[in-house]
Amino acid sequence: MPKQVDHRERRETIARALWRTVEQRGIAHASVREVAREAGISHGAVQHYFTTREEMLVFAMDFASEQTSRRVTESITGLGDPPHPRDMLRAMLTQMLPLHPDARATSRMSAAYVLEALHNASIHTRAHDGLAHGRDLIEQIVRQAVTDGHISPDHDPATETNLLLALTGLTPLIELSVITPQQALTAVDQHLSRLFTTKA
Amino acid sequence: MPKQVDHRERRETIARALWRTVEQRGIAHASVREVAREAGISHGAVQHYFTTREEMLVFAMDFASEQTSRRVTESITGLGDPPHPRDMLRAMLTQMLPLHPDARATSRMSAAYVLEALHNASIHTRAHDGLAHGRDLIEQIVRQAVTDGHISPDHDPATETNLLLALTGLTPLIELSVITPQQALTAVDQHLSRLFTTKA
Repeated sequence: MPKQVDHRERRETIARALWRTVEQRGIAHASVREVAREAGISHGAVQHYFTTREEMLVFAMDFASEQTSRRVTESITGLGDPPHPRDMLRAMLTQMLPLHPDARATSRMSAAYVLEALHNASIHTRAHDGLAHGRDLIEQIVRQAVTDGHISPDHDPATETNLLLALTGLTPLIELSVITPQQALTAVDQHLSRLFTTKA
Repeated sequence: MPKQVDHRERRETIARALWRTVEQRGIAHASVREVAREAGISHGAVQHYFTTREEMLVFAMDFASEQTSRRVTESITGLGDPPHPRDMLRAMLTQMLPLHPDARATSRMSAAYVLEALHNASIHTRAHDGLAHGRDLIEQIVRQAVTDGHISPDHDPATETNLLLALTGLTPLIELSVITPQQALTAVDQHLSRLFTTKA
């Protein structure tokens, strides 16, 4: 196996071990030592791939975002080319909610990362850039949907984008079993249904 | 001062020190020892008021919820008797967002508490009960607003309640400075404005 590929694979293995640690025990346990134990490799081996805990956290979060994007791409495959903007937004939002095991791991990683960002300036910058980039992608879809007549032009795209991203606020309701995954999906669909109602 | 009052006041002082610790350094630092230091009292004195870290966390969260309720009550005073349901919901939602220092402290406490609940069964039960109770209060307001003709009867009160609570999902956007507090308020008002649009 080429060395470059092996290097990347090892980093992903460590990142997944970090996700499991965060998901099952919380980010307070996500030290190089405890993640190494979870990954079943030596402390020194993890340090070969990540010099610091922060570098490991940043990679694990970037990898979580990539995996979420991959799930979104998979779930819109076969839904038309190009897919309807409503289907794209539904796929993006539902993959950000903890509705199945993979999404729960990346959702918990993301929630912990935001809290970590509040006390670490360089993670704050990375987390800001990541969220701002995701927000921009959604705003482009919303603007295009207005241009194409799928969303009524009396909607402000920036505000609608913020309201779409706010749907991730269903997360604590799901995580604390206050609502079911099905009730969360019903809420997402209700919101999208109103957004995509255009006057005939 | 009566002993009972003094006891309660000391517990509130410790709870506020815990909020500051969570807000400024993260819940990983919210040990009895570090909270005692933040409160400027001895470790032993904190242990007199709270036997365990968990008991201290639970009290601090209950106190955060009470203080949020108090701010909501204050902000709807003078808005009519009874206040319009839209004003009540706006007050509840905006006091749950980190739009000013007091709300930021309780919002960060709440976000950290949800993550803590995922790895602690007894905190999970408390957090579930607290969120379910808050959700019930909002659903009662929504149902009454439908009965009174403020919200169109074609809206499902349970789903609308979940969508209202989801607006707390604006929190990471505000905390990471991706949107301004004013943009968050605009989004909340846009959502409420659509919810309270009834056919004439």
